[in-house]
Amino acid sequence: MADLHFREEKVFKDPVHDYIYVKDPFVWSLINTRAFQRLRRIRQMGTSFLVFHGAEHSRFTHSLGTYEIMRQVLSHFSRNHNWPQDERMVRLALASALLHDIGHGPFSHAFEGVFKTHHETWTRRILMEDREIHGILSQIDTDFPSDLLSVISKGQKFPLLERLIASEMDVDRMDYLLRDALHTGVTYGRFELERLIRIMRPFGHDIVIKQSGMHTVEQYLLARYFMYTQVYLHSTTIGSDVLLGKILSRARDLFQEGQLKYCPKELVPFFEKPESEITVEEFLQLDDTVMHYAFSCWREEEDLSLRDLAARFRDRRLLSSVACRHPLDVDTLLEIQHAFDDAGIPSDSYLSYKAISTGGYLYKQGIKYVGDDGRLRDVCEASKLIHSLVPEVYHRFYYPKDLVEANHDRHTLVELLHKLQR
Amino acid sequence: MADLHFREEKVFKDPVHDYIYVKDPFVWSLINTRAFQRLRRIRQMGTSFLVFHGAEHSRFTHSLGTYEIMRQVLSHFSRNHNWPQDERMVRLALASALLHDIGHGPFSHAFEGVFKTHHETWTRRILMEDREIHGILSQIDTDFPSDLLSVISKGQKFPLLERLIASEMDVDRMDYLLRDALHTGVTYGRFELERLIRIMRPFGHDIVIKQSGMHTVEQYLLARYFMYTQVYLHSTTIGSDVLLGKILSRARDLFQEGQLKYCPKELVPFFEKPESEITVEEFLQLDDTVMHYAFSCWREEEDLSLRDLAARFRDRRLLSSVACRHPLDVDTLLEIQHAFDDAGIPSDSYLSYKAISTGGYLYKQGIKYVGDDGRLRDVCEASKLIHSLVPEVYHRFYYPKDLVEANHDRHTLVELLHKLQR
Amino acid sequence: MADLHFREEKVFKDPVHDYIYVKDPFVWSLINTRAFQRLRRIRQMGTSFLVFHGAEHSRFTHSLGTYEIMRQVLSHFSRNHNWPQDERMVRLALASALLHDIGHGPFSHAFEGVFKTHHETWTRRILMEDREIHGILSQIDTDFPSDLLSVISKGQKFPLLERLIASEMDVDRMDYLLRDALHTGVTYGRFELERLIRIMRPFGHDIVIKQSGMHTVEQYLLARYFMYTQVYLHSTTIGSDVLLGKILSRARDLFQEGQLKYCPKELVPFFEKPESEITVEEFLQLDDTVMHYAFSCWREEEDLSLRDLAARFRDRRLLSSVACRHPLDVDTLLEIQHAFDDAGIPSDSYLSYKAISTGGYLYKQGIKYVGDDGRLRDVCEASKLIHSLVPEVYHRFYYPKDLVEANHDRHTLVELLHKLQR
Amino acid sequence: MADLHFREEKVFKDPVHDYIYVKDPFVWSLINTRAFQRLRRIRQMGTSFLVFHGAEHSRFTHSLGTYEIMRQVLSHFSRNHNWPQDERMVRLALASALLHDIGHGPFSHAFEGVFKTHHETWTRRILMEDREIHGILSQIDTDFPSDLLSVISKGQKFPLLERLIASEMDVDRMDYLLRDALHTGVTYGRFELERLIRIMRPFGHDIVIKQSGMHTVEQYLLARYFMYTQVYLHSTTIGSDVLLGKILSRARDLFQEGQLKYCPKELVPFFEKPESEITVEEFLQLDDTVMHYAFSCWREEEDLSLRDLAARFRDRRLLSSVACRHPLDVDTLLEIQHAFDDAGIPSDSYLSYKAISTGGYLYKQGIKYVGDDGRLRDVCEASKLIHSLVPEVYHRFYYPKDLVEANHDRHTLVELLHKLQR
Repeated sequence: MADLHFREEKVFKDPVHDYIYVKDPFVWSLINTRAFQRLRRIRQMGTSFLVFHGAEHSRFTHSLGTYEIMRQVLSHFSRNHNWPQDERMVRLALASALLHDIGHGPFSHAFEGVFKTHHETWTRRILMEDREIHGILSQIDTDFPSDLLSVISKGQKFPLLERLIASEMDVDRMDYLLRDALHTGVTYGRFELERLIRIMRPFGHDIVIKQSGMHTVEQYLLARYFMYTQVYLHSTTIGSDVLLGKILSRARDLFQEGQLKYCPKELVPFFEKPESEITVEEFLQLDDTVMHYAFSCWREEEDLSLRDLAARFRDRRLLSSVACRHPLDVDTLLEIQHAFDDAGIPSDSYLSYKAISTGGYLYKQGIKYVGDDGRLRDVCEASKLIHSLVPEVYHRFYYPKDLVEANHDRHTLVELLHKLQR
Repeated sequence: MADLHFREEKVFKDPVHDYIYVKDPFVWSLINTRAFQRLRRIRQMGTSFLVFHGAEHSRFTHSLGTYEIMRQVLSHFSRNHNWPQDERMVRLALASALLHDIGHGPFSHAFEGVFKTHHETWTRRILMEDREIHGILSQIDTDFPSDLLSVISKGQKFPLLERLIASEMDVDRMDYLLRDALHTGVTYGRFELERLIRIMRPFGHDIVIKQSGMHTVEQYLLARYFMYTQVYLHSTTIGSDVLLGKILSRARDLFQEGQLKYCPKELVPFFEKPESEITVEEFLQLDDTVMHYAFSCWREEEDLSLRDLAARFRDRRLLSSVACRHPLDVDTLLEIQHAFDDAGIPSDSYLSYKAISTGGYLYKQGIKYVGDDGRLRDVCEASKLIHSLVPEVYHRFYYPKDLVEANHDRHTLVELLHKLQR
Repeated sequence: MADLHFREEKVFKDPVHDYIYVKDPFVWSLINTRAFQRLRRIRQMGTSFLVFHGAEHSRFTHSLGTYEIMRQVLSHFSRNHNWPQDERMVRLALASALLHDIGHGPFSHAFEGVFKTHHETWTRRILMEDREIHGILSQIDTDFPSDLLSVISKGQKFPLLERLIASEMDVDRMDYLLRDALHTGVTYGRFELERLIRIMRPFGHDIVIKQSGMHTVEQYLLARYFMYTQVYLHSTTIGSDVLLGKILSRARDLFQEGQLKYCPKELVPFFEKPESEITVEEFLQLDDTVMHYAFSCWREEEDLSLRDLAARFRDRRLLSSVACRHPLDVDTLLEIQHAFDDAGIPSDSYLSYKAISTGGYLYKQGIKYVGDDGRLRDVCEASKLIHSLVPEVYHRFYYPKDLVEANHDRHTLVELLHKLQR
Repeated sequence: MADLHFREEKVFKDPVHDYIYVKDPFVWSLINTRAFQRLRRIRQMGTSFLVFHGAEHSRFTHSLGTYEIMRQVLSHFSRNHNWPQDERMVRLALASALLHDIGHGPFSHAFEGVFKTHHETWTRRILMEDREIHGILSQIDTDFPSDLLSVISKGQKFPLLERLIASEMDVDRMDYLLRDALHTGVTYGRFELERLIRIMRPFGHDIVIKQSGMHTVEQYLLARYFMYTQVYLHSTTIGSDVLLGKILSRARDLFQEGQLKYCPKELVPFFEKPESEITVEEFLQLDDTVMHYAFSCWREEEDLSLRDLAARFRDRRLLSSVACRHPLDVDTLLEIQHAFDDAGIPSDSYLSYKAISTGGYLYKQGIKYVGDDGRLRDVCEASKLIHSLVPEVYHRFYYPKDLVEANHDRHTLVELLHKLQR
């Protein structure tokens, strides 16, 4: 790695950050790898585009944006707080931001549910096994790949970097909130990025804020709250994920029964083998386009359920849902399943009961501030607003409204659905 | 069509227009068709995402946006200029805006070049032959589909609508300039949409502007100029289109020689038949995901050129180019081709010479203003700035820089390339 | 009032709303009155510009903006909820939005505190006594001025209009939050205006929201919360108001003792007479420029306190403050006052103890939503977040830091100030 | 000047640049001077607020913004082009940006026309004579004030700094275009600031651009063009300046005849003395509030013309104008003057004939780019668009429409005015 820096900064034009600056050829090389370029073909927000039509941006753009925020944080920290002091630490930080999502496949949520894969596993394997990526990382030094993995997988060796890349106030979230807000067209996800960076500071092994920045943290946590409740957990988006899971399960079952007529070869390993036997090369073949192509094929399968499910996803005829007043007990669920099965609407293929928790952001183990007395305290001790952001759980029951309405037994089914809401 | 309007407006959240309003169930039905939903899988800006990473939005979002601007123009016109006066005309206008791109396939520019297809043809056939779309249109009345086609294909029956949907100052361009500017992150494409709408007015069979709005038109035409020169005609984007064309030509040739191992069945009709024999159903199977899937397959073909070309596109190792001082003559081109062929770099697969014209926007036959004397004049008579926007032609020569650098004959080749620039 | 509408809408270009539309000549006439034009010379945010330098915009721009939001609300209501149905009601609504601040003088907060004036009184008197304004209003009909006054002063005759112009979710607040956010450069005050308008609806005598819009109301109330805590109640701004009050009190005292050398004649009535004896004509002479001019004069007074206070305001050498741990008791306050007086720093002129309440927005008597059962409930019953927004009181003690530091007794004074913080 | 830098950067929140960063206590001291704080009371855009109501921002905000852009340019230059290399040069640059407008008084254009003062003179005198400013500057070293003056007054000692602070592509213009665009609400003034900074570079004694940045320069020059034609030279704004000039001339004449009843003492020196005899202290007393206060007084003068003119400005009853087809000859002008004088409308007080040139931006002596051959050329050689931006001259005749319409001789006058337009 002869040159530490390009003579002139290279830039990417970005809708969120205006410009993304790259001065380090090492970063440039990572961007140009096949594994990283593949992220262009994986949408950041999965099925959200079916609800917010603008949500069509890729993990590629988000990964660049995460890198850029990390770059800005480091620049601010080194100007004002004298850290980090060595170039290797900077490169660990920048590479971890750039590559934190490298192990994601298409529609991670639904896909990982059906195939029992884990993006953390694939991140590790790509960093350590992909010849191109591993080669570039190893040029820094032989320990670099494993140190980078340690940062991303929270190995506790580089606590400050871990906090920056994955914590209640990390550069990953900062980028995706702003980016997803821009593309969906909502204003909820906006917060004062520049000010948030200014109030953060390294403090021992933690990243903390100064007390006068409390309202900025409130604003940032509320941006998260609104994006989760209004966008990420939108009931129709969750229904789209349900539908996707149904498609994949059904296809897998048919495949294993030898009944699946069409199957893109890229999906075969996932149908045939456990995660541990799939190669990195096989994993990197997967992207959104493979999935969409599979759905396109499957709308011509002989199996009626798979045909219908695939067509629904393609043409956006999604599942409907009702909000359940109370968590459903097993007896109620069985009753409904039987009723649908009896009416000729296979419950396996069409019904789903979901508990949706807004509690993915347990900030309470989270952000600390330095009080007047120099002690660290959790921000929720000082902010009623943050204190009020407790997780909540909602229950929804998903079903195919059109099939119900066209069914001879529709009165029975509708009555059952009404019962859930009472 | 019992209900003329929904009781409450339905809305789509949009990053450009904030909200897109739908009050007419007829419009709602068109949006929910399979042919329209398919536009979600076709990117608006083709290969531009390889240069501006944010350019990942689809023709679906642009089509909704075009509809929304048309809706706003009609609302303004009816409030201030007493036109249109009947609901059928409004529906023709809205449907033409919504469906103006319905005949586009994936990567239109390169695709149509190789396969000799025409999106105008497919628009016509979808409106007239697609059962779902044609059915909804026919519910208005039996002439509606052909009248709509007349508007979109400039049949001169509805001159004002034609001007609104396709002219030098149309709602199509207004939306894509704003939308593409947002997603690429450049500011060049912005103009004062609301003011532009306010200065437009119907005048006989034309849409004209009032003279005091001259600077607003200048700003709009400059937005176009900048988007073309800086974004749409970016040399790397054109190089990506060249690469795409090379892939498709090579695959078609191999197919026709019986040498293509893998081919998604959706592409087969285009390899086998002339456009006129392809069915609407076959056409509607095509989208970006099919193409990406094909490229993924072809990187494992036996043919070395196709393998390499497909991998280049997937992993973003694009063709390089040099700006030519003068248009190249046939002898020079032949000399270069031979030299590359001799060096073992097949010119057919890798070289391209392009004349790039910024003159796609011949506004001079374009926008009229009403002068003080009540006469119509072209805006370029009143504006030196607009007058200066004449088309220009650039010439670039595309080639694979990495192959040249790795070639034993590289000195000869480099010297030849230098000659082009002199 | 012959013409109901201009043939073409007139517009104002506005940094917040893009355009402000005026179609009614009645509104146009009101804008062109002397009393309304005077609002150009009164800053919307009083002394805030000393903290947020961009806060230089006037009540004129805010009044136009409030009108525009009212216009949009009425347009939405009449399109979707069939109200209001008569033109007189529309005009009452528009005029109340336009004129709601007409009774404000310069730096209302500090000014009204010292001179015991009330902007509500002056609004009433201007509507009823100013020849120009009253004349235009009376052209609608003889009851119009008093009906308008009823709307603005909550006479309970037009409950829906009263809610729209002054309640927990009114067009006044909507405009000033967005406008003040823009000019100060903070993002805190932004919310989804268009969506907020869409979820509002008339319901009996109240304006309520639909339940699905709960998060939009949360966002709006949080915008308020942040603007109050971060901007409006900024400790330095409050200190600037304190300073202003000190200047005015001191000048009034000197005037009444016959010791004030310079006094702009426009201020004399307020020094000499109770509010009830001041004429509308005299009131309308007042604006920010008179006040600034007075301060300019007073920096050359013989009285040392007034000279110094006026110079401080002009040159931005403001009072400092400490946050008090507990509310101060009378004894402590007296002790401090004596200590400062003894040190030669007149406590009357320089010290102030302020209890600052963030509770100006008691939304709890506030916004109702229509539940699934059709009953009205307060939004804070459904939102933990809103429920957490209870008023809080802070206590600050203001003093002249520079004078303390230059004082021979500084150690005593500093020690006393430290005690307040413990 | 012990400390070179604050430990933590201080910031101002700004609507244009988000944050303005101050790390140097020297800059902080200059901002806190009386002369600089005075700029808060002088509006950047003079009388433009009478046309664009949002144009209420001060020279204070613009001066801070100019400083911030200079800071960004220096940061970019030192990162990428290794200049400037010493701290003194940086401070000269920052101070010149901050203080470039320090010599401006209220409504410079009209004021300087009537009183024959020059802001350049006052800048020089403030830098050299104002005790506070000169003191801070002299703390750097004894030559610093005169070197700073050399930069601002183009003494050719620091050519690069001169180019940065005042040339066809300077930080002053960059800030005011963006700032004025924001506040007026137009989009015309926007350009890609960050990109413009990136393409600029020091080259010998000049600041030039790289050729690939040509379109960015085009966009910037067009922003200027649009802001001048659409905003700065708006015919109503020029009419407001005309009115202001009429007020000041009339007041001065009356003063010199001993007929002016009210006169704020701050204006007296300007009525009595030539510029050279006015003290810096007297000059610094002047600001917008003095002027507005004077107009308020003068609407109660006995002189009918002054009364009326002052009331017009206060209540926004401006002069009207007609566009003249041709430049007017002396005979025509005399004929009109006589006709108005005969009709009892004093031509001296009410009429004005203005040639308005859009040619204030003679960029042709302007911006250079580095061609492929390493030679410098003017950008207008490479850009047809820039080449088309030649100055144009318009002629308008201003008169009081209301007085004409109320005049017994109105037919004669109207006929004369019509003649001008033919």
